Amino acid sequence: MKRTPIVVTILALSLAGAEAHAQSDAIRAVRSYRQANEAAIVQELVDFLRIPNVAYQSDMRRNVDALIEMMERRGIAARVLETPGVPYVYGQLNVPGARHTVLFYAHYDGQPVDPDRWVGHAPFEPILRDGSLAVGGEPMAMPADGALDPDWRLFARSASDDKSPIVAMMVALDALRASGREPRANLKFIFEGDEEAGSPHLGYAVQRYGDLLAADLVVSADGPADPSGLPTLYFGARGIVGAEITVYGPLRPLHSGHYGNWAPNPALRLAQLLATMKDPATGRVLVDGFYDDVVPLSERELAAIAAAPNDDQQQMMEFGIPEPEIDEPRLLAINQPSLNIRGLRSGWVGEEARTIVPDVAIASIDLRLVEAIDPQEQLRRLIRHIEERGYHIVSEDPDRDMRRRHERLAKVTTSDGYPAFRTPMDLPVARELVAAVEGHTGVSVVKLPTLGGSVPLYQFTDGLGIPTVGVPIVNHDNNQHSPNENLRLGNLWQGIETLAAAMLIE
Amino acid sequence: MKRTPIVVTILALSLAGAEAHAQSDAIRAVRSYRQANEAAIVQELVDFLRIPNVAYQSDMRRNVDALIEMMERRGIAARVLETPGVPYVYGQLNVPGARHTVLFYAHYDGQPVDPDRWVGHAPFEPILRDGSLAVGGEPMAMPADGALDPDWRLFARSASDDKSPIVAMMVALDALRASGREPRANLKFIFEGDEEAGSPHLGYAVQRYGDLLAADLVVSADGPADPSGLPTLYFGARGIVGAEITVYGPLRPLHSGHYGNWAPNPALRLAQLLATMKDPATGRVLVDGFYDDVVPLSERELAAIAAAPNDDQQQMMEFGIPEPEIDEPRLLAINQPSLNIRGLRSGWVGEEARTIVPDVAIASIDLRLVEAIDPQEQLRRLIRHIEERGYHIVSEDPDRDMRRRHERLAKVTTSDGYPAFRTPMDLPVARELVAAVEGHTGVSVVKLPTLGGSVPLYQFTDGLGIPTVGVPIVNHDNNQHSPNENLRLGNLWQGIETLAAAMLIE
Repeated sequence: MKRTPIVVTILALSLAGAEAHAQSDAIRAVRSYRQANEAAIVQELVDFLRIPNVAYQSDMRRNVDALIEMMERRGIAARVLETPGVPYVYGQLNVPGARHTVLFYAHYDGQPVDPDRWVGHAPFEPILRDGSLAVGGEPMAMPADGALDPDWRLFARSASDDKSPIVAMMVALDALRASGREPRANLKFIFEGDEEAGSPHLGYAVQRYGDLLAADLVVSADGPADPSGLPTLYFGARGIVGAEITVYGPLRPLHSGHYGNWAPNPALRLAQLLATMKDPATGRVLVDGFYDDVVPLSERELAAIAAAPNDDQQQMMEFGIPEPEIDEPRLLAINQPSLNIRGLRSGWVGEEARTIVPDVAIASIDLRLVEAIDPQEQLRRLIRHIEERGYHIVSEDPDRDMRRRHERLAKVTTSDGYPAFRTPMDLPVARELVAAVEGHTGVSVVKLPTLGGSVPLYQFTDGLGIPTVGVPIVNHDNNQHSPNENLRLGNLWQGIETLAAAMLIE
Repeated sequence: MKRTPIVVTILALSLAGAEAHAQSDAIRAVRSYRQANEAAIVQELVDFLRIPNVAYQSDMRRNVDALIEMMERRGIAARVLETPGVPYVYGQLNVPGARHTVLFYAHYDGQPVDPDRWVGHAPFEPILRDGSLAVGGEPMAMPADGALDPDWRLFARSASDDKSPIVAMMVALDALRASGREPRANLKFIFEGDEEAGSPHLGYAVQRYGDLLAADLVVSADGPADPSGLPTLYFGARGIVGAEITVYGPLRPLHSGHYGNWAPNPALRLAQLLATMKDPATGRVLVDGFYDDVVPLSERELAAIAAAPNDDQQQMMEFGIPEPEIDEPRLLAINQPSLNIRGLRSGWVGEEARTIVPDVAIASIDLRLVEAIDPQEQLRRLIRHIEERGYHIVSEDPDRDMRRRHERLAKVTTSDGYPAFRTPMDLPVARELVAAVEGHTGVSVVKLPTLGGSVPLYQFTDGLGIPTVGVPIVNHDNNQHSPNENLRLGNLWQGIETLAAAMLIE
């Protein structure tokens, strides 16, 4: 297996403290099956990727039909679950004598595309390259058979996010059966059709089809695996809620010569307000109560983080960062709620700069949440912080009279957002999943109590009371949500094994 | 004369404390001449406005030819002053026995145009309306003769900025002569051709043609008169210099879930830096030495400000401002240097908001300067302020290594800018101008020690040592630099009288 020296080093480091496991016979058989069928496996994915899948833009029924066909061909009882938006697709495979039922989640829709920005092909015409674009990967013919290099990459919208995990699930089942094995758990599959539109119908689907979805464990196969390349399980994800703060100056931009230093400058006001929100020395958020509801990590969770590869130094190098904002390893930092200024806008800068006192200044903020923090309560804390700095808060653009009445006036608009989820790593079913994956693959996997990003899996944990674990398989450098999205084949190979191992949970 | 009630009130208020003067015979004659020739006067302006005049886009020679013709027709010795860019046009009229030589300045170029945004006509096809667009003024035929209502408005690029003052100068001369009078001073005229491009050749022209331009006084007829509608003289203008500050986060925008609260957020850093620059309670700039070089206003200057109409309350109402940033009347505030954030940019806001840690945050700042403050020294003070907050300053985008080396890193780029000018109101020639204008027009004019905005007239004061006074005549609501630029005819009528009075300086 070709690897860059850096990856080899990190693998070596990360495995140094870990037990060496032996791969199980079942996974050895899965690997043999895959090695004998690499071209056909990729071809099944390519055919699936050829079907455009942008929710509310593409013909999503073609994707639905393909999913039904993929499952029925494997003896999975499949059906469409209608929603007020894009339908979900459901599948079920019962295994005699199974102790557990595992619900595998993925989404079959993809991000919108900007075809002009894709290099060398259209987003729904998959091509294979002999490496990433970053290393100058060149297009190559799709092999009809033989071995495919794990560093080759398949480029297409949803190649990684999130069609390849669906194919990996199907192939994992094929591979188990090729050696006469069946999963040890009853399998259910739920494939969402408008996840990239913000999962507007996941709550509906969970409520309406809750009986059908009943399971002991949800395995979500979305998102990238750890940059180390090791198989990864995440037991939670941060929630998110957004707020936009608009601060007001004069009703229209004023000439900065005639009015500068007299008309209030909203950009300055906004800067002074934002400056109060975080301690520059420690990176701690200064909003009262911001950390109050944080549930400390358990011993097992802290141990999992300590055992996970720490790639902070490499990332700081890659991103040109001298010091992190907060004096903690990243994997610990993402277990705290955060306040992030994602955008600032007032007047104009650069070539477009105009000598004005701007009329408004806007900051867009996202708050990431951890387990037990209520999104709306966290927003209320932020709003209270702004009020305590003398601001009168409104939710609509104020008229002249309103502006005349309040020297400090801010419009705050918020998004609904959703909470975090965190499945305790101590739960028996969680420990059984870890045992299955590590026991069968022979690899000590990366176990993250919380993913930094947000996925609305609280719908399963809070809505249906089902413990949920993420099993992401794709390469971290997959250009997710961007042009030239791609899947490293080696990640698909490993993902098939990881998901097959999850199907062997006892 | 039709006026809105507000204007009547302000006029009444502003005249309340002022001496009532009698109009001189000369100005009475000027008014009679104008009243008898209103249609022809407007026609001369219309013909001039039909010649497109965007520097470096239009054929500027056509404007030059028109100016030469306008002056020669009146017996003014005219010539072209070549520069490396657009030529200047010069005129000279000697008056036997004159004590003074007055150099009248205006510019014949106009701002670039966006024809799609002009209502009902092309920018170089002037039309007359029976009022401003704000009051629903309707297009009307150009009268061939008879009286023209002073509230009618002529719409075209440069109708106010700055071709009408040129026509007003010419007509002032015609009007004086119609009653057998001549100016009391030798007149010189200098018309600039690329003022709206930033006066790139004013320094060249002043140096190259300094002997030709020698005068006792420069009268600049650019900019709008006081919103009160009263004739206005300004004896100075603030200088300006620009700075753009870029603060750095990660080399590329990072996912705020995976990296928020760990990767440094440049928008927060920038906010915290900007917040240190001004005292939120007093509006005073906190940059060390910022006010050190300010020359206090003289008794006469303070008295002139006290006598000028104070329209702060009306402007605060118009702009929806509850309190000014600084606890001073606007006319005093603009005699201080200012620091104005004219733009902020980082990431995205609103519908475009993306959940990222931005890679950079940018603030564009303008510093307005008053008499005796050196532009580059004021910039150095700002840069020192940033350095004292722990920032390493660079002037080019830093590379990864540079970013890794400095936890606080800011790129500061600056513009050359130019200094303020302030002609002491005590100077004999300044007092003689005031006496001429007030004595002849019979109106107590608004006298401003400093205009808030910036004009590079330091080229005359510092470059040639000639005291300079601004005599702006056009309406303040002229849509200067914007689509639908317009001139209120009443301002042209009044401007002819004011400029004729200035020509009678003794």
